[in-house]
Amino acid sequence: MFRRHPTPEENVTMTTNNAQRDALAQRYGANHIPPMGPWNDVIATMMNHRSTRGFLPDAVPENTLETMIAAAQSAATSSNLQTWSVLVVHDPEVRKEIAGIANNQKHIIECPLFMVWLADLSRLNRIGGELAKPFQTLEYLETYMVALVDAALAAQNAVTAAESIGLANVYIGALRNNPQRVAELLGLPPMVLGAFGLCIGYPKPEAKTEVKPRLPQGVIVHHDKYNVGDIAAQRADYDATLLEFSKRNEMAAGTWTDRLVDRAIPVKGMGGRHRMAGWLRSLGFPLK
Amino acid sequence: MFRRHPTPEENVTMTTNNAQRDALAQRYGANHIPPMGPWNDVIATMMNHRSTRGFLPDAVPENTLETMIAAAQSAATSSNLQTWSVLVVHDPEVRKEIAGIANNQKHIIECPLFMVWLADLSRLNRIGGELAKPFQTLEYLETYMVALVDAALAAQNAVTAAESIGLANVYIGALRNNPQRVAELLGLPPMVLGAFGLCIGYPKPEAKTEVKPRLPQGVIVHHDKYNVGDIAAQRADYDATLLEFSKRNEMAAGTWTDRLVDRAIPVKGMGGRHRMAGWLRSLGFPLK
Repeated sequence: MFRRHPTPEENVTMTTNNAQRDALAQRYGANHIPPMGPWNDVIATMMNHRSTRGFLPDAVPENTLETMIAAAQSAATSSNLQTWSVLVVHDPEVRKEIAGIANNQKHIIECPLFMVWLADLSRLNRIGGELAKPFQTLEYLETYMVALVDAALAAQNAVTAAESIGLANVYIGALRNNPQRVAELLGLPPMVLGAFGLCIGYPKPEAKTEVKPRLPQGVIVHHDKYNVGDIAAQRADYDATLLEFSKRNEMAAGTWTDRLVDRAIPVKGMGGRHRMAGWLRSLGFPLK
Repeated sequence: MFRRHPTPEENVTMTTNNAQRDALAQRYGANHIPPMGPWNDVIATMMNHRSTRGFLPDAVPENTLETMIAAAQSAATSSNLQTWSVLVVHDPEVRKEIAGIANNQKHIIECPLFMVWLADLSRLNRIGGELAKPFQTLEYLETYMVALVDAALAAQNAVTAAESIGLANVYIGALRNNPQRVAELLGLPPMVLGAFGLCIGYPKPEAKTEVKPRLPQGVIVHHDKYNVGDIAAQRADYDATLLEFSKRNEMAAGTWTDRLVDRAIPVKGMGGRHRMAGWLRSLGFPLK
């Protein structure tokens, strides 16, 4: 039987399809590859994300920070209020103390670029003071939520920008184990929370991990009505996927359930953060 | 004087530099262009973001939703808890009611793809029920914050994926004007908040706007210690930038200050959302 060679265009398409299929298989496991839609370098960059917890001392390219911030500021911000800021921590002593707060994550000390993303209502508060029009909305939980979401949207764009030039990263939520001390260290005014940290740099070869599989799309995506699904089946299936991932990457916590039971279910897994509501009030967020 | 022609490589670099400079000038105004760092298509895609409030009825490409969700699920999620979901609203009657809740934003009705991003602790709650291990951590404000940040990181990746294939978008925060009714309409179980909506589609030609300028990087970025700066000077400078933008785009609210005074400072500008803390408790978030 005659079989013609693929044309150059077909070759490109086949290579793209293979790359897309591989990326989706890594993200979901081979049994849960979703239908393949549009694909390009931007999408491939995001799909390739993994958290990295070991960094080489090599500096990031010149003006990487400025590019990351430009991407971050390009994200949507509720009513253009821009209720976030970011603080770059250079001081090794401060990094060391923050690492201690965050359960001794030593990559906070060793990464070349470490920043703290701030949910920041203080800028609007200063404007209110200047205009002699007290900003009543700042006292409410809703406005605090806006600041937190603004900071997250911005940070995620910064992460994608960094990943697009080959830089690895990890978010540091455990900064919130002691927001008061973080505020003192960074000189934060009232109404500013160090929401999460971000380590940026080139990965140590031994710190490279696979892409971590997530829950299948069918568990996450709902149509018109929320579908509670069969949680026992969903969990068992995802436990099997994560167990394989953990084995391949020589990780201790095997299944998703193991991790939930260890760290996510008991209050002692929160690193003290069950006191967050009181902590936020003492940082100047009334959360009315 | 002899002047040689640029080489092809130099031509590419010059074109890139011009595109980068133009993008930064649009985002910050010509007087506040930050130092130019790394640049590529991924960064250019994010820098080109603008919110769009008018959509053509044309369908999005096949399996765009699946690609957006794959990008969304590739974002970091705190301790891999995956405390978010997304609900696609197809039903025109439901869209109509949501548009009404959101101050009659008619693009919610007309866009081809409308989704609601959910801060979702109910999945973990179901697992706790199944394991007969009540998930104590779900009762705390901290865990609610994790869900909100998870949803935002995911949504922002989905937005970038959509923008990379030429789709316009706008987030709909005003969904939170009535979270109870949204929960009823979408059949949300307890411990799920419709955090924000997202309209996706091709822009109507007349809905195309310029990139909106943001505050200069020096106002947003801090080094080692938070710098409160000179808020009067910062505000006056940014007011001038936004006034020019508003004039060029025939918008009513001229300066940033105008907008703050109208909409962001008074409680009546919150669309009822000053009651959010009580609303969230009635949705099953104790926020301890």
